[in-house]
Amino acid sequence: MQLTRIPGLLFGGDYNPEQWPEEVWAQDAKLMAEAGVNIATVAVFSWSRLEPRPGAYDFGWLDRVLDLLHEHGIAADLATATATPPPWLIREHPHVRPVDANGTLLDFGSRQGYCPSSPVFRAATARLARVMAQRYGQHPALAMWHISNEYADHTLECFCDESARHFRTWLADRYASIDGLDAAWGTSCWGQHYTAFDQVNPPRKAPGPINPTQLLDWRRFCSDALLECFEVERAILREVTPDVPVTTNFMSILPGLDYWKWAAAEDLVSDDAYPDPADPTSHVGAALSYDLMRSLKDRPWLLLEQAPSAVSWRAVNVPKPAGMMRLHSLQALAHGADGVMFFQWRQAVYGPEKFHSALLPHAGVRSRGWQDTLRLGKDLEKLAEIAGTRTAADVALVLDWDSWWGLAAPESMPSARLDLKDLLAAWYAPLHARGIAVDLVSPDHDLTGRRLVIAPNLYLCTAEQAARLAAFDGHLIVGPFSGVVDTADHVHPGGAPGPLRELLGVSVDEFRPIPDGATETVRHADASTSTVRRWTEWLAVDDASVLARYRGGDLDGQAAITRRGRVTYLGCLLDDVSPVLSDVLTRAGVHPVADVPPGVEACRRDGADAHYLFLLNHGTTAASVTLREPGRDLLTGRDLRDRVEIGPRDAVVLRIAQEGEK
Amino acid sequence: MQLTRIPGLLFGGDYNPEQWPEEVWAQDAKLMAEAGVNIATVAVFSWSRLEPRPGAYDFGWLDRVLDLLHEHGIAADLATATATPPPWLIREHPHVRPVDANGTLLDFGSRQGYCPSSPVFRAATARLARVMAQRYGQHPALAMWHISNEYADHTLECFCDESARHFRTWLADRYASIDGLDAAWGTSCWGQHYTAFDQVNPPRKAPGPINPTQLLDWRRFCSDALLECFEVERAILREVTPDVPVTTNFMSILPGLDYWKWAAAEDLVSDDAYPDPADPTSHVGAALSYDLMRSLKDRPWLLLEQAPSAVSWRAVNVPKPAGMMRLHSLQALAHGADGVMFFQWRQAVYGPEKFHSALLPHAGVRSRGWQDTLRLGKDLEKLAEIAGTRTAADVALVLDWDSWWGLAAPESMPSARLDLKDLLAAWYAPLHARGIAVDLVSPDHDLTGRRLVIAPNLYLCTAEQAARLAAFDGHLIVGPFSGVVDTADHVHPGGAPGPLRELLGVSVDEFRPIPDGATETVRHADASTSTVRRWTEWLAVDDASVLARYRGGDLDGQAAITRRGRVTYLGCLLDDVSPVLSDVLTRAGVHPVADVPPGVEACRRDGADAHYLFLLNHGTTAASVTLREPGRDLLTGRDLRDRVEIGPRDAVVLRIAQEGEK
Amino acid sequence: MQLTRIPGLLFGGDYNPEQWPEEVWAQDAKLMAEAGVNIATVAVFSWSRLEPRPGAYDFGWLDRVLDLLHEHGIAADLATATATPPPWLIREHPHVRPVDANGTLLDFGSRQGYCPSSPVFRAATARLARVMAQRYGQHPALAMWHISNEYADHTLECFCDESARHFRTWLADRYASIDGLDAAWGTSCWGQHYTAFDQVNPPRKAPGPINPTQLLDWRRFCSDALLECFEVERAILREVTPDVPVTTNFMSILPGLDYWKWAAAEDLVSDDAYPDPADPTSHVGAALSYDLMRSLKDRPWLLLEQAPSAVSWRAVNVPKPAGMMRLHSLQALAHGADGVMFFQWRQAVYGPEKFHSALLPHAGVRSRGWQDTLRLGKDLEKLAEIAGTRTAADVALVLDWDSWWGLAAPESMPSARLDLKDLLAAWYAPLHARGIAVDLVSPDHDLTGRRLVIAPNLYLCTAEQAARLAAFDGHLIVGPFSGVVDTADHVHPGGAPGPLRELLGVSVDEFRPIPDGATETVRHADASTSTVRRWTEWLAVDDASVLARYRGGDLDGQAAITRRGRVTYLGCLLDDVSPVLSDVLTRAGVHPVADVPPGVEACRRDGADAHYLFLLNHGTTAASVTLREPGRDLLTGRDLRDRVEIGPRDAVVLRIAQEGEK
Repeated sequence: MQLTRIPGLLFGGDYNPEQWPEEVWAQDAKLMAEAGVNIATVAVFSWSRLEPRPGAYDFGWLDRVLDLLHEHGIAADLATATATPPPWLIREHPHVRPVDANGTLLDFGSRQGYCPSSPVFRAATARLARVMAQRYGQHPALAMWHISNEYADHTLECFCDESARHFRTWLADRYASIDGLDAAWGTSCWGQHYTAFDQVNPPRKAPGPINPTQLLDWRRFCSDALLECFEVERAILREVTPDVPVTTNFMSILPGLDYWKWAAAEDLVSDDAYPDPADPTSHVGAALSYDLMRSLKDRPWLLLEQAPSAVSWRAVNVPKPAGMMRLHSLQALAHGADGVMFFQWRQAVYGPEKFHSALLPHAGVRSRGWQDTLRLGKDLEKLAEIAGTRTAADVALVLDWDSWWGLAAPESMPSARLDLKDLLAAWYAPLHARGIAVDLVSPDHDLTGRRLVIAPNLYLCTAEQAARLAAFDGHLIVGPFSGVVDTADHVHPGGAPGPLRELLGVSVDEFRPIPDGATETVRHADASTSTVRRWTEWLAVDDASVLARYRGGDLDGQAAITRRGRVTYLGCLLDDVSPVLSDVLTRAGVHPVADVPPGVEACRRDGADAHYLFLLNHGTTAASVTLREPGRDLLTGRDLRDRVEIGPRDAVVLRIAQEGEK
Repeated sequence: MQLTRIPGLLFGGDYNPEQWPEEVWAQDAKLMAEAGVNIATVAVFSWSRLEPRPGAYDFGWLDRVLDLLHEHGIAADLATATATPPPWLIREHPHVRPVDANGTLLDFGSRQGYCPSSPVFRAATARLARVMAQRYGQHPALAMWHISNEYADHTLECFCDESARHFRTWLADRYASIDGLDAAWGTSCWGQHYTAFDQVNPPRKAPGPINPTQLLDWRRFCSDALLECFEVERAILREVTPDVPVTTNFMSILPGLDYWKWAAAEDLVSDDAYPDPADPTSHVGAALSYDLMRSLKDRPWLLLEQAPSAVSWRAVNVPKPAGMMRLHSLQALAHGADGVMFFQWRQAVYGPEKFHSALLPHAGVRSRGWQDTLRLGKDLEKLAEIAGTRTAADVALVLDWDSWWGLAAPESMPSARLDLKDLLAAWYAPLHARGIAVDLVSPDHDLTGRRLVIAPNLYLCTAEQAARLAAFDGHLIVGPFSGVVDTADHVHPGGAPGPLRELLGVSVDEFRPIPDGATETVRHADASTSTVRRWTEWLAVDDASVLARYRGGDLDGQAAITRRGRVTYLGCLLDDVSPVLSDVLTRAGVHPVADVPPGVEACRRDGADAHYLFLLNHGTTAASVTLREPGRDLLTGRDLRDRVEIGPRDAVVLRIAQEGEK
Repeated sequence: MQLTRIPGLLFGGDYNPEQWPEEVWAQDAKLMAEAGVNIATVAVFSWSRLEPRPGAYDFGWLDRVLDLLHEHGIAADLATATATPPPWLIREHPHVRPVDANGTLLDFGSRQGYCPSSPVFRAATARLARVMAQRYGQHPALAMWHISNEYADHTLECFCDESARHFRTWLADRYASIDGLDAAWGTSCWGQHYTAFDQVNPPRKAPGPINPTQLLDWRRFCSDALLECFEVERAILREVTPDVPVTTNFMSILPGLDYWKWAAAEDLVSDDAYPDPADPTSHVGAALSYDLMRSLKDRPWLLLEQAPSAVSWRAVNVPKPAGMMRLHSLQALAHGADGVMFFQWRQAVYGPEKFHSALLPHAGVRSRGWQDTLRLGKDLEKLAEIAGTRTAADVALVLDWDSWWGLAAPESMPSARLDLKDLLAAWYAPLHARGIAVDLVSPDHDLTGRRLVIAPNLYLCTAEQAARLAAFDGHLIVGPFSGVVDTADHVHPGGAPGPLRELLGVSVDEFRPIPDGATETVRHADASTSTVRRWTEWLAVDDASVLARYRGGDLDGQAAITRRGRVTYLGCLLDDVSPVLSDVLTRAGVHPVADVPPGVEACRRDGADAHYLFLLNHGTTAASVTLREPGRDLLTGRDLRDRVEIGPRDAVVLRIAQEGEK
């Protein structure tokens, strides 16, 4: 299955022709064609230009842009243009604007200035989406629809009265009666017993810590409310243009939106990724996000935005060193992307993103950046055949937004130092370093066929989820502070690990967070030791073997890591999980896709009659990799076998024919 | 005099039966009895359950709870349930809610969400207090009344229009005329001359620094406004149940409320104390708070809340290591408490405090925590005879809220690095380490009979207070930046030390705060040196001997510490006050209650025919203490003499018969 | 030309008699006369006392104050008293108060609590200014008018609806049509296309980053709006008292107000300077501000406020060590001031500034501070002849508020680590250390006759400004990130250095900010190296010689510093610009006014028949200076030649007769 009707890999970027005089457009189209660009994202922020007055449209310029693109063989990722409501809508309906937790009505002047629950806003987006679909649904340039932009980047939540009404409706749907809400929210604590839904508000600023179940439901509601905004438009697009795929650009792994739920509402998953070039390990975090994007629908996805070089919104915006733009583009493909797009085509000369890099920089075609653009275009042509190929992973990491949100409750957790993304990364990084393919899964997914499932944290864990894990017949690793609460954030009877108690064979007597900067030591069966930070637990071992015990300190001699059958439990946060991971990988029979030295990333994609081995050297010195099988490097055309030398920030993409695989 | 009608020491905790199905209650009562619990704090946050609709009461469940407790020999510290106004009151009267300095009306969702000046809120609490008193005043379980909860924890101040009206009334009472206010507030500065009270507002957010006398009066008003809330309920309870003692739980030493004034309005002083287990010196700060609690009414007090192990509101909530819960409980008794209570009995499974430890943890009776509970119950029975015994202290530390508030004025002081609690602790810690008993006193107290009075700071010092100090015939130590202003925060004529000038025999030419991280050195008469941080003064010595002079720097050779007669003045903040303290203690003839090695705390309580020596080893290794007199350890029943070995985090409570004392 | 009608140098301070009983006034006048004070700033915050009720005036006390001063030979710098609107105006017209970006209406309680755009406020100040001018315009004490106080100290901006209307008017004047605004603001970016001015608001809090041109215009507007407040009063004063000079006290070099524009509206420039005594280099920053003050009108200026010792608004207010008050006073004269005044005469005993030092401290005439006051008075008499003398500088530093504001745009620049004041100081400090006289210039100034012009940064640079620099025939140094945008904050075609491209002979391929804490190295032609922090650029050298190249790192071998003719360009921020500066100073033939060792500052003033050499030893040990010419030290009356020894924090002011100059 292809992402769009465009053959091969997608290459392009955001294109904002309305920022330029029309004479520049022809030059743009010519240069795009020269660079091999085959898709452009258009009209993301064009509402105020397309509909300058209520119901009065100005489509002429966009007609000409789309025609021009089409003439040059460039398709359009066409936005519904609803990312920023226009000034006239804001001024006629001031309450379209969002309100913060202090009650401040935020003003126009930035972007994404809407209340997600505003009926006026939703109706206006619906009207525009329908007009756009009707006008451009049959345009030959149209390859896909792009709804809004980076939902939740600036506006994840609104605390206005309209949002309060909407929240109450959402709560009434969830709990049926106010008694149901009182039970779920535990309003007997701190005297919060409600007697009617209209007494309930969003978690606006209050004198002290707010009810954590109210906060958890608010997080759920905010994700849902924005998803409804998406669905309002999607329904119209499906109705008018049923054959055109629809997406919205995600923002990599981020806490605001439950992307499992969101991805189900999309035709294709697309992502915006901005790893920091100043961080030498940022490609590892990017890999985790990319694996999530692929896993969301278990199929190829689209890197819809990345920066050719520097961004403009960090305090210090370091540009990408030579080779990194190409290498990071290949990395996205290695993790299952079928296209590489950028923010943006031509560098802006005004506005908040004028110093954000672009495929065509301020310095124009004489710039080094433009040479990078041309080179990447050629590379992508060489890799066209990987489009549509898939990735298989024996290992799955569990990611659950309910647990993420629950962990993040302010002022009421054993430790505020637990962020689910960090906990995932602690397992992902050593898997990545070993060249092992990883999928992300929800705790509600079918795990059948996996060799190893790792749940770094399942703070919120239902009986159904626990039963699914118990039924899983592969190896399982569970991290600390799991099985603590149910969907209402109520502690399970008897405390942690709640419904996982029998599966793990341990009970938690007491959570023991560690002060910032302090450490504990655990000693493994082989007498080696590991350092623990942030978290320990006093475990009671009911029916498990002990793999490691604390040494010294108040916990001296107590169990730190245990195993029952194929299930390993860590009651602590290791600085480095490798000792545990290596052991379990061996037991589970998980193998890397290639044997790689430090700094080299290895990924595999499987086609019908060949597979593809990506070897990406993120280091600043050359690296040597031993090849298991011979193949042809698609980037250079060389036939390689036995061993390949890969230059700094260079890569090899080996095509290995199916017969070579046995 | 006993705290309540319950014989011996009190043992128990907050009990929130409304959070549990009724079948759990019987189990609770049985376990309480098993543990030796004799008192439970009930109904603190029950308003929304007891009065679910205006004037409609549901007392059935509380009736059953109190009956059940009584059947099991457990008394009730019964709350008037007014700590959190119910949702219906908030929604019917939105201005019951507090408003912050920015004008944001805070919303429901936490606790303590009331404006202290709200007539609606006060009337509603009065109504509920009366109904509670009438219904339960004769209940056999009732041992004491508990009004509200931790006043000022979240809501110390409200900036709403009602509060503004109330503030104006308070000011009119204080100053009689607007001219009086103008004079006191120094409105000639910065052009703030008022011509009518209705021009005056609370110190809401302003463009720059706010008039410091306005701020000082605001602090006084806020303490008074909450005290009025307390008194509204207390008056009703006294009327309906004149024989039942009334308290509200203080929050250890804290700047918000003038506890001298508050304690006078109570029948018994009770305190909530949460020393951080991650801080190895937190027991010293706790000791200071406990000595304050005892001093407030100069009689036994009640530790109404502490945590059995971890709390839940810190960023990282470290649990108590083995032995600390018992040791800290004994420490409270050593400092004059007649009971040890906890938050809370049964660990919550929902809400913001579900990870706060409890006497009965999530893991239930199989937990280590439950064993600690049982052990402490037994220990308290053994110590029953200390109930009602008293403490005498030759040394008094002066604590004055006016000075605390004055010192804390933002953006207008010589240094923002002076907090009165820190200044007190700098003297308290070495006294505590020496095993010397200390009382806290107000500068308005009678000092007769003290051997040594230490005023770490008297920034605000009236002529009357100065005269009292001058008339005192013991030894006196006065810390820097004292005698600076009068009650209106006006600098005394001629500058510091103002009314203390003759007593001290020095004048301050200039305050000389030290930059953060920098130090000065002073050289004592014996040629030893001390390090100075944060503060120095250029002193003119009028009539005093110089005990120490600065060495090096701009102040080289200038007087740093002086003495006139029995009065020692420090014009600087020493890193370690021990050289000065040791000298004065010797001169004053002050002796420790026992000779203790580092880490061992020694306290004494005096009974009618015996006294009791508490030796508390806060260290993590055993300590050996030489005994002056033989006695019997109440905890073990051993007869001890000459020397006793005390294990890590263990304690001895020696009963020493009166005849053995001379 | 003299600053005022007072002969010689001005000496005095703020005097607030309304804070004291009338019997103190006579003592004040006597002591002022004794100290040689010849001017007092009066009535700055007196509005609420002079007009206690709308239109009802109480001038009696001020009449008596002015008469008393005059009787003692003391002139008045008479304020129009409009710095703080009185409570009655605030309460009758609540919207006189300013509103912050969150919409909070700030309350009374501090000072400067007005909306700069408020017609009510402006009318009230106009009324008071007229009454003051009419009443005191002929008073013999009146020497100058002092409008308001430290504009923009607390209130630089207001976001209220009135300010919004005013902003729109300002924008309509600037852009004529909404299309003009749309073009300038680049509203095609992020969908901000306006169709009417009434859709436009101040940059109130928004969901994300705000349009940077909107922010730049807001900065311009805020400076202009306050300037209009000044001009409302000035126009009246000019009308009623055309011969009395008018000033307002600036706040040293600060970003809020475009002082080039402001100074043009004044008769004389006056400044408030508060270098931090805790910072041993603070005199260098003060020197930069003083050179700016002199340059603003290219004539003598007045130090209207400094602190005799400590201030009261820092977190830690360190007093001045012995000698610093005198030395810093002489420093102002050295940089062209014709008077030295202080905040304030008599130390307040109440209010937010009661711990701010004064000429007459709390401790009175027995204080050391009072001795300093007397000494300075005598010194100023000895220096009377320098009044009116001028300063010539071969070197000019370019300072442009548009660039400052542009650089400071939040969340949209390559680096948030570039502040124009820091960039200026990096060049000013080594010039100052060398004893080289420096003027500040605007990029719109005539540069004719300068030997060297240094533009540390010209982020915003118009074609006209570039042409002026190109036409300049002296030596020019341009710092990095220059020539980037035009007046609308639009990037010049082809990117930086835009209109400076031909002049510099380089193009910027990419900006390369450096992460915090990281460094790069550049190697000069003589093989010496310099360290680079915060900023580098990838330069394309079009037509220039390369003076230094990067060594190591991604930029290895690339040009870092270039020269084309007399124009040197730095594409990076050197830790120490000395290697470049020394080279260019030699080429340009710039010489110091004296050869001074480290810590000694040298400045020169030129009179009709003599010049004056100030040698100021800021060090804490004695310094020896070789004299080029003999002269007489005005402070001691000694005749000096060849060499002079200057004690720590001491100074010499040499009168060198004209004939000695050749």
